[in-house]
Amino acid sequence: MEFESFLVSLGTSAVIFVVLMLLFTWLSRRPGNVSVYYPNRILKGMDPWEGSSLTRNPFAWIREAFTSTEQDVVKLSGVDTAVYFVFLSTVLGIFALSALLLLPTLLPLSATDNSLKTSRNVTDTTSNGTFSQLDNLSMANITRRSSRLWAFLGAVYWVSLVTYFMLWKAYKHVAALRAEALMSSEEVLPEQYAILVRDIPSPPNGETQKEFVDSYFREIYPETFYRSLVVTENSKLARAEAVFAATSNRPMNKTGLLGLVGERVDSIDYYTKLINESVAKLEAEQRTVLAEKQQTAAVVFFTDRVTAALAAQSLHCQMVDKWTVTEAPEPRQLIWENLKIKFFSRIVRQYLIYFLVAITILFYMIPIAFVSAITTLGNLQKALPFIKPIVEIAFIRTILQSYLPQIALIVFLAMLPKFLMFLSKSEGIPSQSHAIRAASGKYFYFSVLNVFIGVTLAGSLFDNLKALEKKPNSIVTVLATSLPKNATFFLTYVALKFFVGYGLELSRIIPLIIFHLKKKYLCKTEAEVKEAWYPGDLSYATRVPSDMLILTITFCYSVIAPLILVFGVIYFGLGWLILRNQALKVYVPSYESYGRMWPHIHTRILAALFLFQLVMFGYLGAKLFVWATLLVPLIFISLIFGYVCRQKFYKGFEHTALEVACRGLKQRPDLEEVFRAYIPHSLSTHKGDDHQFKGAMSRYQDYAAISAA
Amino acid sequence: MEFESFLVSLGTSAVIFVVLMLLFTWLSRRPGNVSVYYPNRILKGMDPWEGSSLTRNPFAWIREAFTSTEQDVVKLSGVDTAVYFVFLSTVLGIFALSALLLLPTLLPLSATDNSLKTSRNVTDTTSNGTFSQLDNLSMANITRRSSRLWAFLGAVYWVSLVTYFMLWKAYKHVAALRAEALMSSEEVLPEQYAILVRDIPSPPNGETQKEFVDSYFREIYPETFYRSLVVTENSKLARAEAVFAATSNRPMNKTGLLGLVGERVDSIDYYTKLINESVAKLEAEQRTVLAEKQQTAAVVFFTDRVTAALAAQSLHCQMVDKWTVTEAPEPRQLIWENLKIKFFSRIVRQYLIYFLVAITILFYMIPIAFVSAITTLGNLQKALPFIKPIVEIAFIRTILQSYLPQIALIVFLAMLPKFLMFLSKSEGIPSQSHAIRAASGKYFYFSVLNVFIGVTLAGSLFDNLKALEKKPNSIVTVLATSLPKNATFFLTYVALKFFVGYGLELSRIIPLIIFHLKKKYLCKTEAEVKEAWYPGDLSYATRVPSDMLILTITFCYSVIAPLILVFGVIYFGLGWLILRNQALKVYVPSYESYGRMWPHIHTRILAALFLFQLVMFGYLGAKLFVWATLLVPLIFISLIFGYVCRQKFYKGFEHTALEVACRGLKQRPDLEEVFRAYIPHSLSTHKGDDHQFKGAMSRYQDYAAISAA
Repeated sequence: MEFESFLVSLGTSAVIFVVLMLLFTWLSRRPGNVSVYYPNRILKGMDPWEGSSLTRNPFAWIREAFTSTEQDVVKLSGVDTAVYFVFLSTVLGIFALSALLLLPTLLPLSATDNSLKTSRNVTDTTSNGTFSQLDNLSMANITRRSSRLWAFLGAVYWVSLVTYFMLWKAYKHVAALRAEALMSSEEVLPEQYAILVRDIPSPPNGETQKEFVDSYFREIYPETFYRSLVVTENSKLARAEAVFAATSNRPMNKTGLLGLVGERVDSIDYYTKLINESVAKLEAEQRTVLAEKQQTAAVVFFTDRVTAALAAQSLHCQMVDKWTVTEAPEPRQLIWENLKIKFFSRIVRQYLIYFLVAITILFYMIPIAFVSAITTLGNLQKALPFIKPIVEIAFIRTILQSYLPQIALIVFLAMLPKFLMFLSKSEGIPSQSHAIRAASGKYFYFSVLNVFIGVTLAGSLFDNLKALEKKPNSIVTVLATSLPKNATFFLTYVALKFFVGYGLELSRIIPLIIFHLKKKYLCKTEAEVKEAWYPGDLSYATRVPSDMLILTITFCYSVIAPLILVFGVIYFGLGWLILRNQALKVYVPSYESYGRMWPHIHTRILAALFLFQLVMFGYLGAKLFVWATLLVPLIFISLIFGYVCRQKFYKGFEHTALEVACRGLKQRPDLEEVFRAYIPHSLSTHKGDDHQFKGAMSRYQDYAAISAA
Repeated sequence: MEFESFLVSLGTSAVIFVVLMLLFTWLSRRPGNVSVYYPNRILKGMDPWEGSSLTRNPFAWIREAFTSTEQDVVKLSGVDTAVYFVFLSTVLGIFALSALLLLPTLLPLSATDNSLKTSRNVTDTTSNGTFSQLDNLSMANITRRSSRLWAFLGAVYWVSLVTYFMLWKAYKHVAALRAEALMSSEEVLPEQYAILVRDIPSPPNGETQKEFVDSYFREIYPETFYRSLVVTENSKLARAEAVFAATSNRPMNKTGLLGLVGERVDSIDYYTKLINESVAKLEAEQRTVLAEKQQTAAVVFFTDRVTAALAAQSLHCQMVDKWTVTEAPEPRQLIWENLKIKFFSRIVRQYLIYFLVAITILFYMIPIAFVSAITTLGNLQKALPFIKPIVEIAFIRTILQSYLPQIALIVFLAMLPKFLMFLSKSEGIPSQSHAIRAASGKYFYFSVLNVFIGVTLAGSLFDNLKALEKKPNSIVTVLATSLPKNATFFLTYVALKFFVGYGLELSRIIPLIIFHLKKKYLCKTEAEVKEAWYPGDLSYATRVPSDMLILTITFCYSVIAPLILVFGVIYFGLGWLILRNQALKVYVPSYESYGRMWPHIHTRILAALFLFQLVMFGYLGAKLFVWATLLVPLIFISLIFGYVCRQKFYKGFEHTALEVACRGLKQRPDLEEVFRAYIPHSLSTHKGDDHQFKGAMSRYQDYAAISAA
């Protein structure tokens, strides 16, 4: 790619960004769009244009984002979102501090050397036109064995030390955030009074599951045991309830909303009859479920937080595969259908799925090729003969033939996060947030291996296959020497990500269009309109791995082509700003895990740093710089740093520390409310929503609360 | 070795065994030796010749051993000893069941083949005289590619399946034993009411360490916290106390024992003065220690067992390296000087010591050679010139020259268990039993690698070094093909171990001689006489690894030379019988860990099985039997079996399960006694021994109890 075409691509992206910004400024001020641009505020019962926004300054949102404190984020969007901002600002700090030293030293050193010119003159055959002015600013332009390489070696140390420092600080900060939230005395968090018990053995003869659980825990905790909630198989009940909801809610709202006066009496009569029948059926079904479909899992409640925290960490049964306990997830996070899966079955599932994911990562091209083969025109015509006349038009035929494989690729890649999420849930994980962390980890390895290493190696690997055969240990070297050739590609990629990606994020063009279309043509009730604008959460499962990919790219190029640090700083800086706006005003968190995402993020940042150090070791080696061996201690320091962090911090994220659980909260909570927070909606009585519990109801109940407000 | 010389060696050993047995029968009935042959009974306050022994039937001890139940063993020698017998009987069961199938099938198959005869005729050069009649009964006599090898393949499966079955049964049994002992309602075990806290941070200004610990735990456990005992640096105090004990006890006993009437008044006066001075000094020192030398560790007491069990398993501080908790070891087991070692320092020490042990195992010949070099006569003469006249006598010179290296080897090997124990304690392990487990593990790997693999490979490895260079992956094959040559050597070794080893064990000739010598020439007080006959414990740190070596040898030869199964059965059968006698009558356990040794033993039995399967895979491969690959699934099954056992059982041994802690024991214990059981002797007041606590005092206090009784 020529330097000019790089500038053109950069310019185009920037223009798109500006256009999207302007669109945002215009659209977000229209009252009809308020539920798309300020849903979080609306749901929190706040005025959308609170405070200074009233002046309608088009850049007021920037000032608001900058002046918002971490406490605001915690209050409006939860600890997990605050932790995500710690991630963004930590990475921003790492790249800014790195750039501060690397740009003024490495760029001049590269620019004043002339390895590329010399080598192009000598062997023009290997050059494939990727060398441009940009490459003169990269390490590719440094002569082999040059003593200038000392500066690049030092730069690797600088970047690494900055990373260790920032990560250590961030881990401490996040731990404090988590502790503060967990020892909060403002809210009663039901999950702090409960534990999740799985693998309950069969009760002795004549006892029900519930009696068995109660007597077991009452014996161990005679004074602090409150009660238990045995998990029941109620998928059938949930379906029945959906039917009930469909028959009972819709017509009432219809009368209210659209006022179909003509048919009113008849339909009310009809639906009232239906409702009465449904209620009777539902109640009968509820009784059966409670009595007969008790499963081998239960939520057990205690009268105080310390006992629950103690119980969640302790071995109850001598045989580890019976009566296994964990901290209870929030009620809205529970994946009910996973709770019954047995101990060893969970382990087997986990390994099976690791295997499947490894296969997916390694051979993900194969199913795509397979799908492409099926979707070739010839095969399509056989399967769907009626498309034949269309296909025979030459123009359409050409387009289809050239795009079908790409469409297959896009569809497959779009399905990937869902597929990984499905796999993670199949492991038998009991909570939503945990499943999301698991899926996010899988997606990270997929994207680093396939996008980053894949793109880098794809071309060079086949060129160098013979060289590779000669010395099979040099995969790192091959990766390292291929990197500089792709520097421009990745610069463009990062720029595209922040200009177009964040432009779309801020402007919310797509959700806006979807909302208006749905509202106009599909939504028939108030609840459906709400569902149309309900924004969902930040979706960490895809957002974090995609940030991680940018992070990995920036790390790996930070010394080879230091210009990328500028792009990295912009990506994470702009990301921080725009997502701050989105977190405060748009997204509604769908769960709260009190920062349990952090150890996961931390490990992956370190993994990226580790890859960077390996690559630099390889590349300095490829430059025949013998002092590259000085990087070996650094690689070990990374491993030790990771080990120490894990030892020192991880357990505090896995469990609630007792010194945290025992503080705050002096008064005794309403235990009845704690208990009812865990009753699945389909099992609770339908006599009105009087059992609401702040901050912990299922999303369905969130809606109910909104309509009641 | 010829067959005849094998028989001679076996016969000699058997004769020694019979002589030792007769000696035992004769000596053990002499009243003067009663404290050597029945110390455990005496210390338990029982009649040494209780019940049927009174008839003085020389074989009464055998009947007594067989009729004793597991409960007797637990009562007289503790759970750990009972677990050791489970180990012996499990291995006995494995070998007996294996022999039942293998001897009648494999021996005829080997005897009727003629590979050895053929190969000796063909290539007499490789045969080095080790092939004898015995070898005709081994797998070495099976022709290559013979279909008879199917039987040997099946035998590997049979031995493995028998082992899985017996190990699973044993693990369950030991878990039940442990649970029963821990939920005992007969005794109050102080360690069940306490936890050990380490890594206590510095107290805030103006607070002492003790106030800090108290307030920290009182906040978390407002109702169940009893009190704390901060660990103090009192090595100086302990020394002072030793001086005190020396000055105060000795003369009093002297008067009582030997009746030195002439100097009586003077010495009493003198010593009384000394005692008074010492007491004053001691008390002053006690006050300083308690006030100023508080360390960063403490024992914290609770009012009930369940809270202590919960607390020991839970994270107290969010930063994992502060306020770390573990179950409290028994008071007599605490290694006080290790308690102050910090979290990360313990980790660093652990890795350092693993490294040191690996070095020791790999290069243990080097220090021996080094010591030998130093101890050659020439160097010795330089160092110790006065030995020159002795050395110049030709006869002594010859003997010394030929034995010095061997002596060095023997000294080094004798020092090894102590050295490994020293290393294990340096890891910062807080309890004696844990240190013993760690040392025992190290010794196991040392003995298997150096004795078994070392002896097997030593000769062949250098012969085959060229073959090895050609295919560097065939270390297993080399080991496998070298095994048959050494079968006779190991048969003799096992026989020597059980005949001479157990003969010495039962007859206790050496302790008897030492006791009589000490009593006659050294002991001046009643307490010293007791110390002279005090038998100590079973010393698992060396006993278990030495049994494990026999086990490994028997496993590895079980199919290659099935005769070894007979020897294995005798070793473990005789061991069971003789140690049953010793456990009931002789050894006094020095600690009780409630079977925590078992997971350690289990893993090592499995490791031996794993080595056996690998060796058989190699040897069947060396026999060019292609179906040897059928052993690959078996090797994986071993890994999975080990994983499942660890998952299912291990945590129950690491911690006290709550369902165990909550049962039994209805009445509230005397907490003051629980607390005082942990006060180091040198810090307790000297106003008499009124703070004794059954089963849990330090050994020093055990002595005191005896003299009081």
